[in-house]
Amino acid sequence: MKLSEGVEWGLHCVLVLATLPLEATVPTKFLAEYHGLSETYLSKHLQALAAARIVESVPGPKGGYRLVRAPGEITLLEVVEAIDGSEGTFRCLEIRQNGPCSSEPAAYRLPCGIHVAMARADKAWREALRSQTLAEIVSQYEQHVSPETRQASQEWIMQRARRTPAKA
Amino acid sequence: MKLSEGVEWGLHCVLVLATLPLEATVPTKFLAEYHGLSETYLSKHLQALAAARIVESVPGPKGGYRLVRAPGEITLLEVVEAIDGSEGTFRCLEIRQNGPCSSEPAAYRLPCGIHVAMARADKAWREALRSQTLAEIVSQYEQHVSPETRQASQEWIMQRARRTPAKA
Repeated sequence: MKLSEGVEWGLHCVLVLATLPLEATVPTKFLAEYHGLSETYLSKHLQALAAARIVESVPGPKGGYRLVRAPGEITLLEVVEAIDGSEGTFRCLEIRQNGPCSSEPAAYRLPCGIHVAMARADKAWREALRSQTLAEIVSQYEQHVSPETRQASQEWIMQRARRTPAKA
Repeated sequence: MKLSEGVEWGLHCVLVLATLPLEATVPTKFLAEYHGLSETYLSKHLQALAAARIVESVPGPKGGYRLVRAPGEITLLEVVEAIDGSEGTFRCLEIRQNGPCSSEPAAYRLPCGIHVAMARADKAWREALRSQTLAEIVSQYEQHVSPETRQASQEWIMQRARRTPAKA
């Protein structure tokens, strides 16, 4: 069981956006170049993040992406679900209802114990991701990465970013 | 992110085996028929469960599969990992090391915050599955399914099972 590669891409992009001034918008091209990623594929993931109202796309020559909300108000779960969907991880085709010993549908009103246990684990995973905000990841980044490296990264991006006043 | 269909198949098969007398072995053919599944595909999953020492294959005309351990000593995590592998759910390609602002490898000794957070969620999922034994699922099955239905199911299987004394 694997999350798609887009989850890693999306998380790193929102992390970068979270370190920039609020009005800075970064074109897809430079988010891709910064991370060494395919612009075409990244574009699809940024659109998914925009559809989930985590980032917004500012159109036009000064356009690009920026966060819609403060990093403290964005959970990792939101980013993961925006890109990989929110469906449960357990594929339950109700096979207990198959075969020669199956009963009439009414006998299956209660979910099966396997389904319940798998759903509980799924919930634990989502809770862990819901309890972590993007702001916490930014804070770890600031603690673990040297000020020089962070400054160089931010300068590289800000030279390519546009500044678009936030909408009223 | 989805577990493979084999996880559902494997969990239901070990649940069935857990309701039978210890010495009963059930051929793949009948485990497949009971659940309305493809014998060929199920065979692959049962082999994975055998490789993980959850079930054992008793060869010969009286052969089939049975549990190796008591249901209280088998966790759902073991069954899930036997079939879907134990690799983490987060695909981390270390993209932080890509691109024009990357540093020398020594700068990346600490894992990135995104990786740490995703690994923590993965661990929560596994802990939830590790805390649940097959015996608990059997107990729920016994509470939720009528005695008549359970008896009919067990009779169907036992008519097709073989009895092979457990190895010394």
